[in-house]
Amino acid sequence: MSTGEFDLIDHAFRKKATFIHRATQLANGDDASVHAIPAGFELVLSTDMSVAGIHWPLDFPLKDAACRAVNAALSDLAAMGAEACWVWCCAALADVAAGEEMGDGVARALKNRAIELAGGDTVHAPINSLSVTVSGIVPEGSAMRRDAACAGDGVWLCGNAGLAAFALQRWQQGSRSGQETSAFQQVRPLLNEGIVLRKAGVRCCIDVSDGLLADAGHLADASGVGIEIETGSVPGFDALCRFLPRDEAAQLALTGGEDYALLFTAAMNLGDELTPLATCIGRCTAGAGVRATLEGRPIELKQQGYDHFA
Amino acid sequence: MSTGEFDLIDHAFRKKATFIHRATQLANGDDASVHAIPAGFELVLSTDMSVAGIHWPLDFPLKDAACRAVNAALSDLAAMGAEACWVWCCAALADVAAGEEMGDGVARALKNRAIELAGGDTVHAPINSLSVTVSGIVPEGSAMRRDAACAGDGVWLCGNAGLAAFALQRWQQGSRSGQETSAFQQVRPLLNEGIVLRKAGVRCCIDVSDGLLADAGHLADASGVGIEIETGSVPGFDALCRFLPRDEAAQLALTGGEDYALLFTAAMNLGDELTPLATCIGRCTAGAGVRATLEGRPIELKQQGYDHFA
Repeated sequence: MSTGEFDLIDHAFRKKATFIHRATQLANGDDASVHAIPAGFELVLSTDMSVAGIHWPLDFPLKDAACRAVNAALSDLAAMGAEACWVWCCAALADVAAGEEMGDGVARALKNRAIELAGGDTVHAPINSLSVTVSGIVPEGSAMRRDAACAGDGVWLCGNAGLAAFALQRWQQGSRSGQETSAFQQVRPLLNEGIVLRKAGVRCCIDVSDGLLADAGHLADASGVGIEIETGSVPGFDALCRFLPRDEAAQLALTGGEDYALLFTAAMNLGDELTPLATCIGRCTAGAGVRATLEGRPIELKQQGYDHFA
Repeated sequence: MSTGEFDLIDHAFRKKATFIHRATQLANGDDASVHAIPAGFELVLSTDMSVAGIHWPLDFPLKDAACRAVNAALSDLAAMGAEACWVWCCAALADVAAGEEMGDGVARALKNRAIELAGGDTVHAPINSLSVTVSGIVPEGSAMRRDAACAGDGVWLCGNAGLAAFALQRWQQGSRSGQETSAFQQVRPLLNEGIVLRKAGVRCCIDVSDGLLADAGHLADASGVGIEIETGSVPGFDALCRFLPRDEAAQLALTGGEDYALLFTAAMNLGDELTPLATCIGRCTAGAGVRATLEGRPIELKQQGYDHFA
């Protein structure tokens, strides 16, 4: 075979990310990859798709977009408390150059991490997009989930909310200052933090991808509880207030997506181990739905989160 | 939450395919799904992307396209001899109606099979596409692979070659006769056949997605052997000869992709169990590369397989 497609797959992706996980039995290059799951562990798997012009601006560097897409997918494993092991990437590419850039971005996301690029697919398409499947392992029965919150629990955030959405606004307004746009350009999945939470006994967690209120709503609905959030406590809100009026800052902190913070529930009095990792932003109630306040007063929101089909 | 996106995911996909695999610990609806892999088994995983206008004609029914994409992905598990367990679908949708159609197609592919739709993602995009991740299990160390062929082995085909490409040509020429176009419209992944081959001791197998010669080339390269194929023996060639001149029939049988037959190597004298399943179409040699003959004479080919970037 000497067709461009297969050479491209090799060059742009496989050869740039060569780490092989210890549990892999048959790596990238066959019809499928084969992996041993250690005894006492379960498989955790998630898949996400990102499309140019929808999930990243058309003038955004493809390398950053691909790196971002992989890190965003890994954030789902962080929310489960899983050890990330493998990534598979399906890249739809407008041209070969796009493949090179996306391959660089995928490799950058995996660099210095014990995560294998275990396979994927490279296809020609009119528009660039990247589908990322991520998988890892978790001790049996210990995965954090959305449906384990109880009334009376505290609601905690590990990471910030709203800063990525603000950075994206700045990019769309023309800023190319790394300082102003880095919160959107660079996603750090909180993998180590997720494992620490899980080991400390946290049972209920979700990553904040759609927006704080939207994802809190997913967690509340799955668990059958209500959630109250005090916006003034949300990490990121104070930083936004330095640039925006307080009500706009509150909107962004509550509805801006793509920060990939971890929202979890636990006792109101968190142990010494977790206290440095997280901030209490509210509590679970016996009701339903999510309510937000700012300094104790209810907030009216324009929208709860990003909706592709709104 | 009452956003259109999440309702769409629920309605178009999740609610149409509700089977839960016995090994699933946490199903569709969380940040990730969680699965137990039985002791003594390994995880097998593959991922594929299909794009409107590239992998299926723009006037092809989306329901058929999605069903086809899932079945094509499952064919990779067939080639490994794996038991298919789980599917995750990332759908990029131009509109909500596309989501309904694709959801119907995914559900049709999984109907009457013990395969779970374990998760996925639904995003808005200018062009419809579907990324499918499939996973299954195989007894430790027994997955069929591309790199296990030996000089002297017979080369066998389970299924046909060329008929899907011919059916696609007929579709593109305007035929909407189910009889003429069904070989492209309907893919049957040879999952049971793959398991029978693996249990009978076959070690080397690939599915024919890119075209018989292209995929034979992958197998030959990975195994470090040459392969000789006699086109007159290829299942599908005689059927093509009823409609096409012999040299055109040979081209299609050797280079037409998307039939999802299983190409495997085994002793020239196959046992009673496998003989009804497969046809000997050639042999492995001590050389390299793939050569095709027709009634013993070498064939010159226009192209070896489909190349997205040619």
